[in-house]
Amino acid sequence: MEQSLFIYNTLSRQKELFRPLVEGRVGMYVCGPTVYGDAHLGHARPAITFDLLFRYLLHLGYKVRYVRNITDVGHLEHDADEGEDKIAKKARLEQIEPMEVAQYYTNRFHDAMAALGCLPPSIEPHASGHIMEQQQLVQEIMDHGYAYESNGSVYFDVEKYDKDHRYGILSGRTLDNIKDASRELAGVGEKRNQADFALWKKAQPEHIMRWPSKWSDGFPGWHCECTAMGRKYLGEHFDIHGGGLDLVFPHHECEIAQAVASQGDQMVHYWMHNNMITIDGKKMGKSYNNFITLPQFFAGEHERLERGYSPMTIRFFILQAHYRSTVDFSNEALQSAEKGLQRLMDAWKALQRLAEGQKVKGQPQVEMKYVEELRQKCYDAMNDDLASPMVISHLFDACRVVNTLLDKKASITAEVAQALIQVFHTFAFDILGLTVDTGASNKEREAAFGAVVNMVLEQRQQAKAEKNWALSDKIRDDLAALGFEVKDTKDGQTWTLNK
Amino acid sequence: MEQSLFIYNTLSRQKELFRPLVEGRVGMYVCGPTVYGDAHLGHARPAITFDLLFRYLLHLGYKVRYVRNITDVGHLEHDADEGEDKIAKKARLEQIEPMEVAQYYTNRFHDAMAALGCLPPSIEPHASGHIMEQQQLVQEIMDHGYAYESNGSVYFDVEKYDKDHRYGILSGRTLDNIKDASRELAGVGEKRNQADFALWKKAQPEHIMRWPSKWSDGFPGWHCECTAMGRKYLGEHFDIHGGGLDLVFPHHECEIAQAVASQGDQMVHYWMHNNMITIDGKKMGKSYNNFITLPQFFAGEHERLERGYSPMTIRFFILQAHYRSTVDFSNEALQSAEKGLQRLMDAWKALQRLAEGQKVKGQPQVEMKYVEELRQKCYDAMNDDLASPMVISHLFDACRVVNTLLDKKASITAEVAQALIQVFHTFAFDILGLTVDTGASNKEREAAFGAVVNMVLEQRQQAKAEKNWALSDKIRDDLAALGFEVKDTKDGQTWTLNK
Repeated sequence: MEQSLFIYNTLSRQKELFRPLVEGRVGMYVCGPTVYGDAHLGHARPAITFDLLFRYLLHLGYKVRYVRNITDVGHLEHDADEGEDKIAKKARLEQIEPMEVAQYYTNRFHDAMAALGCLPPSIEPHASGHIMEQQQLVQEIMDHGYAYESNGSVYFDVEKYDKDHRYGILSGRTLDNIKDASRELAGVGEKRNQADFALWKKAQPEHIMRWPSKWSDGFPGWHCECTAMGRKYLGEHFDIHGGGLDLVFPHHECEIAQAVASQGDQMVHYWMHNNMITIDGKKMGKSYNNFITLPQFFAGEHERLERGYSPMTIRFFILQAHYRSTVDFSNEALQSAEKGLQRLMDAWKALQRLAEGQKVKGQPQVEMKYVEELRQKCYDAMNDDLASPMVISHLFDACRVVNTLLDKKASITAEVAQALIQVFHTFAFDILGLTVDTGASNKEREAAFGAVVNMVLEQRQQAKAEKNWALSDKIRDDLAALGFEVKDTKDGQTWTLNK
Repeated sequence: MEQSLFIYNTLSRQKELFRPLVEGRVGMYVCGPTVYGDAHLGHARPAITFDLLFRYLLHLGYKVRYVRNITDVGHLEHDADEGEDKIAKKARLEQIEPMEVAQYYTNRFHDAMAALGCLPPSIEPHASGHIMEQQQLVQEIMDHGYAYESNGSVYFDVEKYDKDHRYGILSGRTLDNIKDASRELAGVGEKRNQADFALWKKAQPEHIMRWPSKWSDGFPGWHCECTAMGRKYLGEHFDIHGGGLDLVFPHHECEIAQAVASQGDQMVHYWMHNNMITIDGKKMGKSYNNFITLPQFFAGEHERLERGYSPMTIRFFILQAHYRSTVDFSNEALQSAEKGLQRLMDAWKALQRLAEGQKVKGQPQVEMKYVEELRQKCYDAMNDDLASPMVISHLFDACRVVNTLLDKKASITAEVAQALIQVFHTFAFDILGLTVDTGASNKEREAAFGAVVNMVLEQRQQAKAEKNWALSDKIRDDLAALGFEVKDTKDGQTWTLNK
């Protein structure tokens, strides 16, 4: 832990030196997906952002417990308490069990995350699997007087809480702001005040996902799960809570209120938020119906996509921006990310061939000092609130050096080359989490090898033209022994490799 | 559904015609892994057996809801109620959160299942995520008088149940047998009778995995989860419950008792059990400490393994035996399975090249009748209690026909060839779930292509010997343009493909 990592804390609105609560260990909670549809590009961003942080903390030597939830219940539509449970709705439309929908999309989410090179979290708790823990949280909040029951549902009393503590410290809103913003909405219904939010909702008769409670057969309010599961797996106080910037209000604001109302103080030390992916300048999201899913990106199957983009291209595209900046979707930007990634990978492959050094007379030497500075510049970038674009730019600088070497315009010793390989590996693979795309590489190799087979067949063609039947037959037989089936057709020779 | 599927019902001890409770739909529950260690060969067997059934039911056109649980709590050691919770024990040893251990091994289990070609179940519920449902089950059993509380724990009253119903109908044991067998064990402790089993266990102070209940802070007895989760996701009555033969007693016997005691009648229509994997004639299992894990098999890293075996070899090895027979582990048997699988896959590849038919003068024709009989024989085998070894033997017969065709000793029309390809695909891939091992195939292709590059380099060598510098240089330049780097060394030419 010789590096000093600074991260931007949304709560203090400044970059702070990261100091874990327990020496050498980090507890980290990140809001995961609601599994009623495929993850889209907007979901890839927090996954990759906090994967970058997870990888960097592990690289620094911390033991990290990384918890990311699966929301399979209780997420209300339009962030309004009166909405219908999204998963139950989908299930009713499809006439299947909600958990079957949740499982299907959970599996697809996992596949997409693996493709994007995101390490699996240490624990991936399901909201539906922690109903008791959420009920317990609700009871504690009631016991402290910050919640009330109304017609079988339980609501958080924001007004009362705001008097004793302050509601809005994360988002910077005040209760008056919030009241103003919600003045035009429909009547408060069961709630005392419009700003109050549901901790437990009584289920309508047709509602499928329901659990018994002392208040009613129902389901927990959306904000409960993260507070209950974060506390269960990371303790009453833990280091980092992450998520998308759109979760600051109301979700994370409500989480803070729930923590303070139940245990008397805040649970989270550093709040971190990634900015949004935009499309045509607007946030990409389910509610705007302007999203492109990850499987659509990988397959190129969406009207806005000129073609498919590999998972690593998506990852590189996201890492090329700082996580606190917005990123606008465009085919041009993705294609430029693809080229940038290719440039890095080409340099990586070339570096392997330089591993034993290269001596070119009269050309300057790549010094160890250069590699050491490169390494420290990469660390400095990561330490400055995970400035991945800076890391990439330093690696591009290393690519230029590699190209100079390839052009025989510089020398390098084996020792320096090894050090350069190590820096490259540490930052490009271990920390940025990039991988060499072997699928594409296989295709390229096959194409190159296929061209060599054609060279041999041309030789055979020439032998035939020269009536050198012995050579022509020998070539055919040698190829056949290797598994190549050569056919002489009217249009020339064709071949297939039967392996 | 034109096929009549017969399956062996452990409950009736005979093969029965399978008739689903709801036309066109099948509900199927299979006991899944306890995630406190890597899955071993003994776990691969139920996974593959019920994957075969799942695939066949889907092929027949049923909509199947396949539920397989993850046991992440409550499985007591040595099947004795006084044992320590296995997962909590492991976690304490490793000084980490039990759910972190469970998540780690769940992820590894999923990886192994995907490698073995097992389709993911429709729902994969966690025992720890269904504590309330299990408590509800326990309460219902108490309400009907078949359970009693003792010192904060709740036990099933087997004696009382046996009087009203009969305990032991699945395993064929009687309560007297069971009492005789357990007479020598330690005292009954909190239980009225030795045969009683725990429905809820009060947690010891040091016990980490615990949930509140009206009886005590504790955890559910092992047998509860399957009854509670089967009912939740498949209903009070469902079609098939599967698992290993070692689960018949006590686990499935207790499940039946719990169902009858709580809802008044049995839940499951067909009970299916796969037989054991043996090693040196003894069941392979955790408790015997004689197991080889799946990752060890794939990597060849265990003293009993002569080398590694691919996941598909393991799958084929298991499918080559009927699921109700024992299978003895040996390197010879695995190597023979590997050869058999290779034979099938070679025939499959050869079939592709025969797709447009083949005419050989004076040789007999492969008739459509042969293909139709082959198809029906494969169906008959599957319909006879999933006789996968018979299906494989019929496919081997088809391999012989393919080889006759390859030897130009038979003719086939395109239409018949297509039909043969279709039968092969249906049974080998869709139903048996085999896949072509592309990893090995890539290596083989690379080797064949590499040999062609060497052919070209030999030509260059000869050109040099003949002082044909123009040709020698042209070959080198052509290869370089494709990405091949050719070096002339003292020992001859070497090459690398930089892609």
